[in-house]
Amino acid sequence: MENRKLCFASDYMKGAHPDILQRIVETNMMKTDGYGLDEISEAAREKIRKACRCKEACVEFLVGGTQTNAVVIDAFLRSYQGVIAAGTGHISVHEAGAIEASGHKVLTIPGHLGKLDADEVRRYVEDFYQDPNHEHMVMPGMVYISHPTEYGTLYNLEELKKLREVCDCYHMALYVDGARLAYALACPDNEITLPELAALCDAFYIGGTKCGALFGEAVVIPDPDRISGFFTIIKQHGALFAKGRLLGLQFDTLFTDGLYERIGVPAILAAQKIREALLKKGYRLCFESPTNQIFCIMENSRLEELQTKVEYGFWEKYDDEHTVIRFAADWGITPEETEALIDIL
Amino acid sequence: MENRKLCFASDYMKGAHPDILQRIVETNMMKTDGYGLDEISEAAREKIRKACRCKEACVEFLVGGTQTNAVVIDAFLRSYQGVIAAGTGHISVHEAGAIEASGHKVLTIPGHLGKLDADEVRRYVEDFYQDPNHEHMVMPGMVYISHPTEYGTLYNLEELKKLREVCDCYHMALYVDGARLAYALACPDNEITLPELAALCDAFYIGGTKCGALFGEAVVIPDPDRISGFFTIIKQHGALFAKGRLLGLQFDTLFTDGLYERIGVPAILAAQKIREALLKKGYRLCFESPTNQIFCIMENSRLEELQTKVEYGFWEKYDDEHTVIRFAADWGITPEETEALIDIL
Amino acid sequence: MENRKLCFASDYMKGAHPDILQRIVETNMMKTDGYGLDEISEAAREKIRKACRCKEACVEFLVGGTQTNAVVIDAFLRSYQGVIAAGTGHISVHEAGAIEASGHKVLTIPGHLGKLDADEVRRYVEDFYQDPNHEHMVMPGMVYISHPTEYGTLYNLEELKKLREVCDCYHMALYVDGARLAYALACPDNEITLPELAALCDAFYIGGTKCGALFGEAVVIPDPDRISGFFTIIKQHGALFAKGRLLGLQFDTLFTDGLYERIGVPAILAAQKIREALLKKGYRLCFESPTNQIFCIMENSRLEELQTKVEYGFWEKYDDEHTVIRFAADWGITPEETEALIDIL
Amino acid sequence: MENRKLCFASDYMKGAHPDILQRIVETNMMKTDGYGLDEISEAAREKIRKACRCKEACVEFLVGGTQTNAVVIDAFLRSYQGVIAAGTGHISVHEAGAIEASGHKVLTIPGHLGKLDADEVRRYVEDFYQDPNHEHMVMPGMVYISHPTEYGTLYNLEELKKLREVCDCYHMALYVDGARLAYALACPDNEITLPELAALCDAFYIGGTKCGALFGEAVVIPDPDRISGFFTIIKQHGALFAKGRLLGLQFDTLFTDGLYERIGVPAILAAQKIREALLKKGYRLCFESPTNQIFCIMENSRLEELQTKVEYGFWEKYDDEHTVIRFAADWGITPEETEALIDIL
Repeated sequence: MENRKLCFASDYMKGAHPDILQRIVETNMMKTDGYGLDEISEAAREKIRKACRCKEACVEFLVGGTQTNAVVIDAFLRSYQGVIAAGTGHISVHEAGAIEASGHKVLTIPGHLGKLDADEVRRYVEDFYQDPNHEHMVMPGMVYISHPTEYGTLYNLEELKKLREVCDCYHMALYVDGARLAYALACPDNEITLPELAALCDAFYIGGTKCGALFGEAVVIPDPDRISGFFTIIKQHGALFAKGRLLGLQFDTLFTDGLYERIGVPAILAAQKIREALLKKGYRLCFESPTNQIFCIMENSRLEELQTKVEYGFWEKYDDEHTVIRFAADWGITPEETEALIDIL
Repeated sequence: MENRKLCFASDYMKGAHPDILQRIVETNMMKTDGYGLDEISEAAREKIRKACRCKEACVEFLVGGTQTNAVVIDAFLRSYQGVIAAGTGHISVHEAGAIEASGHKVLTIPGHLGKLDADEVRRYVEDFYQDPNHEHMVMPGMVYISHPTEYGTLYNLEELKKLREVCDCYHMALYVDGARLAYALACPDNEITLPELAALCDAFYIGGTKCGALFGEAVVIPDPDRISGFFTIIKQHGALFAKGRLLGLQFDTLFTDGLYERIGVPAILAAQKIREALLKKGYRLCFESPTNQIFCIMENSRLEELQTKVEYGFWEKYDDEHTVIRFAADWGITPEETEALIDIL
Repeated sequence: MENRKLCFASDYMKGAHPDILQRIVETNMMKTDGYGLDEISEAAREKIRKACRCKEACVEFLVGGTQTNAVVIDAFLRSYQGVIAAGTGHISVHEAGAIEASGHKVLTIPGHLGKLDADEVRRYVEDFYQDPNHEHMVMPGMVYISHPTEYGTLYNLEELKKLREVCDCYHMALYVDGARLAYALACPDNEITLPELAALCDAFYIGGTKCGALFGEAVVIPDPDRISGFFTIIKQHGALFAKGRLLGLQFDTLFTDGLYERIGVPAILAAQKIREALLKKGYRLCFESPTNQIFCIMENSRLEELQTKVEYGFWEKYDDEHTVIRFAADWGITPEETEALIDIL
Repeated sequence: MENRKLCFASDYMKGAHPDILQRIVETNMMKTDGYGLDEISEAAREKIRKACRCKEACVEFLVGGTQTNAVVIDAFLRSYQGVIAAGTGHISVHEAGAIEASGHKVLTIPGHLGKLDADEVRRYVEDFYQDPNHEHMVMPGMVYISHPTEYGTLYNLEELKKLREVCDCYHMALYVDGARLAYALACPDNEITLPELAALCDAFYIGGTKCGALFGEAVVIPDPDRISGFFTIIKQHGALFAKGRLLGLQFDTLFTDGLYERIGVPAILAAQKIREALLKKGYRLCFESPTNQIFCIMENSRLEELQTKVEYGFWEKYDDEHTVIRFAADWGITPEETEALIDIL
């Protein structure tokens, strides 16, 4: 089956890396224990622990990003605590109140191209504890960031360490949403490796859905003693996947021979090419974004024609005559797709 | 890959029907809209509407059973309402409090081999409204049943109609958990077809995970005006599947040429054979169960040996010397598997 | 103002002990800090700690019983835990799902005249942990009992100690709802004093609303380190009372010169008298109940006349011709009220 | 009992209007039905309906403000909806996440001295519905404002009408938090009467705790058909007050001979006097605030001495050398208190 027009709307629109499909086909009639208790899942866990250089980590596989955020945040927070996030964070805006549905407030701080500034977080928490009424307010119990962010930007190592310090200082957990983590790992600018994440975070997830898996995200909790009852919390959130091996084998494949760490490369290269082509053709980029997403300011008049030829993402209104649109390159992008887009632009 | 020992522990241990796998492989590099807004999902919806003879039905695809129950119950109930279920119902016991997690009490009534009796439900609700303190209590807003039940038993049409009447009388929604629905539809004793379900229920789900799909359940709400905001509720529960077409194509396959209605047949035939063999060998069945599950009373001494050769489900302690165990036959069972089990018994 | 007919419907129908009213009047135009941070509240806390012989106890004052149960249970449980209670427990039936509203399942066990049996609790929890699927189920994190129970019955010291042992064994908190605690303390049969409660429970509340206060309940948590964020949890439940001193001064009064421990005496004596009169007149008591509530089996024909003269509580249908009704004697009952009731019977 | 130093920290620090105390004393030994089903509560409801010129209104009495907000918002919203509020709104900051605890997100918009601007609300909601991803976001189902606001400011009639129009346009409920409503009604600048509130809002509450009652708030829902199950929702929130008549008699007193509409007058006059004195003495007011609260910019060095003589509220840091403090005048303020404060300043 073929698509009628070019599609750069998002990075979860294709299926899975061929190696994953093959594993699914090969194991199809095998019978294994459910709920991730099978050997394939265990092997995948072990590979992830190794890649993170974190032997004791708790690794669990969930189905999707919003679900993962809701489960992890609920597992770490006490009922009276909330989670600090950028106002543009996925949990702040695009999860339909999933965090609040489990009773936790999202405490928003203005972000900078999707990133939280450690000093601003520190000030927020300091102000909180200095407020004589703070016991009438939601206690910040966690800091949520994404890497890459929703804007495709990256934290550098120094920034992440500073966030860690603030969290340590105020007994907050640090949680990284890695829905597009493969695109960070594949990016030359990226300083934050899996072992760094394991060393600096209380929890993070390795995104599969947007990074070559059919679906699935791998939660890593470097120190499992930080939480309790995680399996039951997963079940309570309706997030326990019956045929757990399906998740396990996807991550087992992604963590065989370092596939995950290089799977985003074609997308990064393609994005770079598209960015250069855009600039050459006189378009303006909205901001610097080194990963697989390209944010471009387009004249509205130009968009009408464009959308007959390519699907892109609406990002935001720029002014009355311009719109910011997003092109997302995915792990499976081909040179033909890239060229075809450049030709159209 | 092969299993070392026979495995009859449950019916979600294999992968998917080969036709489904083939569709997944064929469509892998296609790019489609996410979240079930793609054409494959829409085609699947249309096929399900036809199979249910219910043109206007809202059909949505979710990932798993507990998730589906939590989402549907939350969508139908107001914050002050609860859901009536058998004490042995899946939502009462085995969903880790997923229903309570969205604030709704499960109001349990003793079941009869997993079934609710309409007269007993009526009495419960009558007593509720006659209780002068009923406004201090959780109002029953829905009746939850499963078909087949957790005991593999079936409602007959008369029983379902009586439950409908009670629900009509007291403004309660009637919801059927069809996690194993294919095994009801394939059972000669079954009186309740898809069109009957659509005619008599406010909501039901067509189980995929245990019935030939890799994963997934199809929620059917015959009259969509009964609820509002369903898409957002799904998202809020972390239950919105990004690559929705994966769910769509599985149900599209299952509802092509009536596959779903016959996919359970091998399991029903095998279960019948196993039951006969058990009786012939002098074992006692714990109760009549006409679908794909077999509940057998075993001497504990016998179990020790048995478990080295076959995986079965623990059901409950019978007495100090006996245990009730469960064998589950699945859609993909082969005559060889059946024979091998019979030989062992 | 006078009541037109006798009123034995419940024990929260009058106002407050005159000493309390006087304190309210005296302090009316005083200005104090809010939220229980005032000196009167602190004095009351200190008196309660002394009465409980528990110097370190956290003592907080809340407004009503359902609120107190919801707050305390939420404070002790993790999100994946539930609370064990008798099926007839107040939290199981008459709190409109307040416990579930904060996400926690009430795990019911059949009670015996309102009481939980420690052996049955142990068996329930043992079965839970032995169930191979227990991680799919709600973990019991607390045992809730009431003393006196909803049936007016009392635990003896041995029974409470056995419950404590079970709780210790399975890391569950033990919580006693003392809505009517004064009527236990005033009862000659009672073995469980305030210091015993403090020694054996993780939390209990000393009921004010039904025991001589205008309103209010005093939560006692002998070891405050068992929980965290309690003040904020109270606020989050909408249970933080602005003019906290009003609660403080009521309990300060009730715990001055041992008033609380004797305030229930008139009710106990009156109830005893009424019971004797009922028996003498040939009525049957439904069960033994040594505190301030009397449960009597009445012919329905008799009730019609009776209800024109006295308000009583409906308890339950006994058979087609009889009903169990409840008379409740309160702390403020006068000999005249008692005599008037006896005359009518 | 006397206070050692002047106290202008808040307006809920004294007890109740003497007429209320007298009623409590007079009715103390009366026995009435609980939960607001008594005749006194009914009389109070009727008086409030008359004062609001709204015959059919549902009127219920609750204990405190946070509780009332949580109950009303939960009653109006569906599980997938949130409530729009100013970022400085009480529900946004100072209720410890009580709204989120029932699963609802507070959707904040920048306020202007505590007030929402109708055009900005309209833009927010328009943007929401124009966002192609809005079904992944929390739907705004209600607009929450306070009158007077947390800044002591007032909406004028035109502003309230414009908010009503926006709400009508987008099917949102309009809810007014009237914790300090008496101080609006007593203010010469105020344009919004009780009948206007009843005509323009879906719900509002008439504050008692800060306005002459010992405690209590009266919720008014002009069209009771807008919601269902309100009594049970109140109970579920732990907000059903057992001796309901205590709330009823307070509001019955406040709504006898128009007491409520004039009870705030002394506070308004005193605040005006204090403002004039402050200006005369060279202090700067932080902003215009026509009701009972005065917001004054003070040098930090001045504060040290001041706080030995008078309790005031900390509002916010102004700059490194100045702080904004709040003086609150209450319904029971005496000329002596006012003079004493002015002398100190």
